[in-house]
Amino acid sequence: MSEQELGITESKEYATGDWYAEVVQKAGLADYAPMGGFIVTKPRGYALWEALQDNLDGWFKDTGVDNAYFPMFIPESFLEREKDIVEGFDPEVAWVTQGGHEELEERLAVRPTSESIIAPFMADWVRSHRDLPLRLNQWCSVVRWEATETKPFFRTKEFLWQEGHTAHASEDGAWDETMLRLDQYERLFEDVLAIPVMRGRKPPHDKFPGAHTTTTVEALMPDGKSVQSATSHYLGTSFAEAFDITYTDEDEDEAVAHTTSWGLSWRALGALIMTHSDEQGLVVPPTVAPTQVAIVPIWQEDTKDEVLEYAEGIAEELEDAGISVDLDDRDERNPGFKFNEHELNGVPVRFEIGPNEVEDEEITVVHRPDGESIVEDREEIAETVEDHFDDVYDKLYEAAEENLEENVREADSAEEILGTIGQHRGYVKAPWCGDEACETAIKEKIAAEIVMCPLDRDVEPESDECAICGDEAHEVAYFAKSY
Amino acid sequence: MSEQELGITESKEYATGDWYAEVVQKAGLADYAPMGGFIVTKPRGYALWEALQDNLDGWFKDTGVDNAYFPMFIPESFLEREKDIVEGFDPEVAWVTQGGHEELEERLAVRPTSESIIAPFMADWVRSHRDLPLRLNQWCSVVRWEATETKPFFRTKEFLWQEGHTAHASEDGAWDETMLRLDQYERLFEDVLAIPVMRGRKPPHDKFPGAHTTTTVEALMPDGKSVQSATSHYLGTSFAEAFDITYTDEDEDEAVAHTTSWGLSWRALGALIMTHSDEQGLVVPPTVAPTQVAIVPIWQEDTKDEVLEYAEGIAEELEDAGISVDLDDRDERNPGFKFNEHELNGVPVRFEIGPNEVEDEEITVVHRPDGESIVEDREEIAETVEDHFDDVYDKLYEAAEENLEENVREADSAEEILGTIGQHRGYVKAPWCGDEACETAIKEKIAAEIVMCPLDRDVEPESDECAICGDEAHEVAYFAKSY
Repeated sequence: MSEQELGITESKEYATGDWYAEVVQKAGLADYAPMGGFIVTKPRGYALWEALQDNLDGWFKDTGVDNAYFPMFIPESFLEREKDIVEGFDPEVAWVTQGGHEELEERLAVRPTSESIIAPFMADWVRSHRDLPLRLNQWCSVVRWEATETKPFFRTKEFLWQEGHTAHASEDGAWDETMLRLDQYERLFEDVLAIPVMRGRKPPHDKFPGAHTTTTVEALMPDGKSVQSATSHYLGTSFAEAFDITYTDEDEDEAVAHTTSWGLSWRALGALIMTHSDEQGLVVPPTVAPTQVAIVPIWQEDTKDEVLEYAEGIAEELEDAGISVDLDDRDERNPGFKFNEHELNGVPVRFEIGPNEVEDEEITVVHRPDGESIVEDREEIAETVEDHFDDVYDKLYEAAEENLEENVREADSAEEILGTIGQHRGYVKAPWCGDEACETAIKEKIAAEIVMCPLDRDVEPESDECAICGDEAHEVAYFAKSY
Repeated sequence: MSEQELGITESKEYATGDWYAEVVQKAGLADYAPMGGFIVTKPRGYALWEALQDNLDGWFKDTGVDNAYFPMFIPESFLEREKDIVEGFDPEVAWVTQGGHEELEERLAVRPTSESIIAPFMADWVRSHRDLPLRLNQWCSVVRWEATETKPFFRTKEFLWQEGHTAHASEDGAWDETMLRLDQYERLFEDVLAIPVMRGRKPPHDKFPGAHTTTTVEALMPDGKSVQSATSHYLGTSFAEAFDITYTDEDEDEAVAHTTSWGLSWRALGALIMTHSDEQGLVVPPTVAPTQVAIVPIWQEDTKDEVLEYAEGIAEELEDAGISVDLDDRDERNPGFKFNEHELNGVPVRFEIGPNEVEDEEITVVHRPDGESIVEDREEIAETVEDHFDDVYDKLYEAAEENLEENVREADSAEEILGTIGQHRGYVKAPWCGDEACETAIKEKIAAEIVMCPLDRDVEPESDECAICGDEAHEVAYFAKSY
């Protein structure tokens, strides 16, 4: 890449979509595949996914979840069993119809989600109350054949995700599970990705097909659109009834299990990239950055040896402390180019080291994204740098939090909902009767929808009249445009 | 499972295939999926795969490999470019022909291996010698539509694997890479899975299509059949030429890269399970065991509290030391049942704790698979148990090594090859002219093939005449039946 190619040319504020696509490509996160709707996840993008996986997978295992792996193909007849649960079920999936040179007798769907292949095995594995709870998870890719414009990590026909599937003896057990996973998703966003989120329920008409309740964590993007960042479903007994997940209880009676499913996809990466990045390129917190510190030595011919030796000692000390560091000692690039390149690639902390730093036994520490520059003692740098990681994290979180806090507004009429979203984007809270038609009335005019309702059903709307139809309001709806 | 169902009913020696299938199912490693050729990998089986992944992935990353993720579908026209390299290329793959309700214009293959989708991106990403070496790896599943009987982990239409793909400026660089990955595979088998392996080259007619050289690690199973456990290919410049992986060298001249690819699949799990297990069930070394220690407390009503308290203290101490432990305090099962169940499930070390152990501040430590029982001091048990892990590992490795050493024989005529394999199975070394027809002559009579030749081409055959045709012998061939 030449020096002038390093910057991002599109505006984050005025052309968010184009800016996002440019960051993804120039920072080496993903490329477009030759087939529309598919992307290639490049090493830097995949490393972000691995960092996210490491955190979430550890929490899952600490709370009783076992990983497993189910086939990527699902026979059509299995998928069709969901018709018992969901009226008008008609999946948009990729179909395998040929194997080798033969036509298959039955089409195989490339999994769009795995309830219909996992549930029959859960039915087989669960016999007694002693087999419950049963908690399974798989990390895999799924395919949904939707004809939309490709947007890396946000909209792709194939995407990476995890899907958890659990069975419980009681409704309470399944509800606790649903909320535990929602808590863990929230924790991932707030404590690892530096993104504040809102927790809520999807309105009944937007639940996962067959679910009793779909809970969600929603993140607000800088352009004022909401991202459904992960969902956790309490499925009630509907899947258990359709797939015979029953067990013998402590009184030797036959009982139907309560099940849940919960998933987080690489949309979380999309939210991460879009929330923090800027017009110099990728910005991510040190918690997930593939390279946490870039050391850029600045030398003249006569100072090169001492500067490099000093820099190498620092790099080694950081590495020994488990910090991921890139000592950028390339001869063919000048420091300015290196600064720009590490900024493009989202390295959160830069060390600048020249002859002055060597002489004073110091290090100039520079934060991404705000460029704040602090001189630190060389001594105990592996400890000091952790404070800088925390500072950078806090800066990113606070900026995102400010965006969220400024962009939750209230409205009590259709006109006000439309006007507020039209002018500001963001979330608009309004009293709602619960009828889908009232959402449709808004959606038809401005492409905003009800992204969530508060989890606590006791949250009383400000007014007792639905903002749209004027009938009795039963709850609060959050309207927003969404990804 | 009832007590009588815990044992394995098939004989390892006389019905190895049935015995293997029974171990896989009863030890909870995998189940058969409803579609022939597919399996469901259950938590205990998947945990073994994760343990193997953790080791290998760490070594890959330490040696310059980046993980990435490429689409699971490959357009037919991309796959066909391999026809430039491989005559008669006609892949047995699963074809996606429909997306949603539409017929696709071009069929998409579910990846059987990813050279044809990765190579075009490598061509795009490699511009200058500074971009080399480029080392990519992905962990994913692949599909090969072969109509054979399903054998979990050994023969399935979909299987999990990793595939590494690298590009280098020089032939030497690519050769070093090929051998480095072969070394890492060997290390995995010998230092983690407790399986001695032999390294070799595949004969020319059995190379990966388009490869210059295919290297392999082969493991000998207890029934005398060889398992090709991982392969590492030096691809020469053939793929780089077909896919335009070229770069500007230090003199600004255009040059063609040398590429490699290398892969290990869940056959490694098959080899692991088959090598060590016995007629009590699964046996695996402590290096990969999902549960390393099962603690079985043995109490009467009046000793229950003290025994349990003592056992809990031990469990906690092991856990704090990072050891995976299962304190089996189930009321509804007796100690004998628990012993059998943990043996079935492949727990390598069992602690038996009764009132005597509590009184003497001791622990009775029992090894799987040989049942050796040793009384140890309670004090510093978290350290002592590591010695037992080493002992169990050594026992497993030595048994496998003995099997291998006893089963490499020599022959210098076709009759002797046939007779030796017929009588003993195992490997038979014979001088070979290099002609595929000589292998065919053996294969037709006894279904044994040349599984490898020594890596070092300077290994001289014992005789200068091919054991089969009598022409000049150029190398040593290892004949064996294989999985």
